[in-house]
Amino acid sequence: MYIGVDIGGTNIKVGIVSKLGRLVNSISFKTRAPRGVEDVVDEIYDNILLLLKKENLEIKNIKGVGIGVPGTVSPNGSTVKAPNMGWQGVDFSSAFKKKLDIKFKLDNDANCAARAEVKYGGGRDYKNVVFITLGTGIGSGIFVDGKMLMGNGNAGGECGHMVIVKDGIQCNCGNKGCWEKYASASALTRFTEEAAKNNPQSKLNDIIAKYNRVSAKTAFDAAKLNDEVAKKLTSEYVENVYTGLVNLMQIFHPEAFIIGGGVSNEGKGLIQPLQQKMDSFIISNNLYPTVAIKKAVLGNEAGMIGAACLVMD
Amino acid sequence: MYIGVDIGGTNIKVGIVSKLGRLVNSISFKTRAPRGVEDVVDEIYDNILLLLKKENLEIKNIKGVGIGVPGTVSPNGSTVKAPNMGWQGVDFSSAFKKKLDIKFKLDNDANCAARAEVKYGGGRDYKNVVFITLGTGIGSGIFVDGKMLMGNGNAGGECGHMVIVKDGIQCNCGNKGCWEKYASASALTRFTEEAAKNNPQSKLNDIIAKYNRVSAKTAFDAAKLNDEVAKKLTSEYVENVYTGLVNLMQIFHPEAFIIGGGVSNEGKGLIQPLQQKMDSFIISNNLYPTVAIKKAVLGNEAGMIGAACLVMD
Repeated sequence: MYIGVDIGGTNIKVGIVSKLGRLVNSISFKTRAPRGVEDVVDEIYDNILLLLKKENLEIKNIKGVGIGVPGTVSPNGSTVKAPNMGWQGVDFSSAFKKKLDIKFKLDNDANCAARAEVKYGGGRDYKNVVFITLGTGIGSGIFVDGKMLMGNGNAGGECGHMVIVKDGIQCNCGNKGCWEKYASASALTRFTEEAAKNNPQSKLNDIIAKYNRVSAKTAFDAAKLNDEVAKKLTSEYVENVYTGLVNLMQIFHPEAFIIGGGVSNEGKGLIQPLQQKMDSFIISNNLYPTVAIKKAVLGNEAGMIGAACLVMD
Repeated sequence: MYIGVDIGGTNIKVGIVSKLGRLVNSISFKTRAPRGVEDVVDEIYDNILLLLKKENLEIKNIKGVGIGVPGTVSPNGSTVKAPNMGWQGVDFSSAFKKKLDIKFKLDNDANCAARAEVKYGGGRDYKNVVFITLGTGIGSGIFVDGKMLMGNGNAGGECGHMVIVKDGIQCNCGNKGCWEKYASASALTRFTEEAAKNNPQSKLNDIIAKYNRVSAKTAFDAAKLNDEVAKKLTSEYVENVYTGLVNLMQIFHPEAFIIGGGVSNEGKGLIQPLQQKMDSFIISNNLYPTVAIKKAVLGNEAGMIGAACLVMD
């Protein structure tokens, strides 16, 4: 058995993961960021013990602990920069090892989710696969011949910051027109807000009123009610997602793309038009083989399972 | 010794390459495309013999023959699609082996140039490096941990077809706004023609008149004469090249970019502003380490040397 820990912005999840990548049981507690690393490690440790007890297991039954952090891990694997946690290069590894002397590894949380999806989820049939999460931003994990592409200094894999609209919408990174400003869940939410305001008669407003909030789901829901404004919105959004996927297809020509994050819950409404566009482009350009586009399947468990993957083998 | 053959649109070059990647001697003849594959193989074979004779060598001194073709090679390495040669899936490998039974390998010509530049040229100090040629289009060769990224079905590495301007200039591939429509040598030539026409007082016109042609060099030459229109042109062009490099930096974070193709002959005038922009972006985003941007150094020899690399090891 392995322990996988997923440190998220809101919750920290601790899970027991089997060697086949199945989540046996899990527990979660509030992140309460910003917060000192020792404090976080203490609470993770206590919850590991609690969780093991629930399953009638002991530390000696655990082969290792992997942890996904919401930030960047130094190439030597010990220090962590995670602005939202208030961590500017903290030595997480030493803090953890002081508490528990066991096989231990850290990685970025999005990388962990990608590892899980590619090893045990939607990507399990492929060696060359690109995992994309459409969330607050756009996260990515790229696998070439089964190995995750990390980049020099672990700084690669930032597909969300590809510029797809030169001189487009300003991004926090300093550039303009990054993919995530057009194709993340947040981007769709922002476009939906604007469209609702500019089109008072659109059913977008009914749905926003009903749930008392606007989300990435709003436009897809209104499109299902045949609302023209919403249909245009979702079709433009799919086109935005597609543009980034085409770029990655031209560069990697993977066997498959796996799409995760909140928006991927739209399922066929998102995946089918993407697959159709991609197929027709590849066929018309004689760029065979085609590239499968699939929905991620592990959901919120991916972070824990992927963190556990870090200490397997 | 090895033989490297570079089949180009205008000339076919045959070279003897040492095990250290040095071009010992070479010979070239007209491509005369479109043309049957047996005919091309015959002339390559005759020229190999001629070249060996010049160097007092015999076939038995040669360990293998590598050939770069202007098209795509099937994953099994034998058939070639090269529209400009009139080859729609010809079995080049069998045709060659009928003539000469020796270790033999084919690859795309741009891949060959990339292999040479990365192994023996501007990229020789790096394992993670992206080679870009700014020519008629934009070619690329991506190396991850020293291994060339081929993509499923050898269909990857088409960085020139990243979309950087959604809904931008129409590209032959069917998409709009591909990088090569903005940052190839052809793109700069096209922008220069337009600018010269729209600005009759610009020194661009003097230089076009002097050489009786417009090229990717025209704008850089006029910019050196302090022509404002040309300075704007070259600065926008550098920005176009930079946008694609930033995308590849975000994805791969390589140790270095190596820039080849005709425009790279501008040297510092191109490389320095690219390096400054890249450095300042990486530093302001804490995306260390920085990424070196270097000029390719093997020029026209890269194709032959890289083809020979195919049969080394």
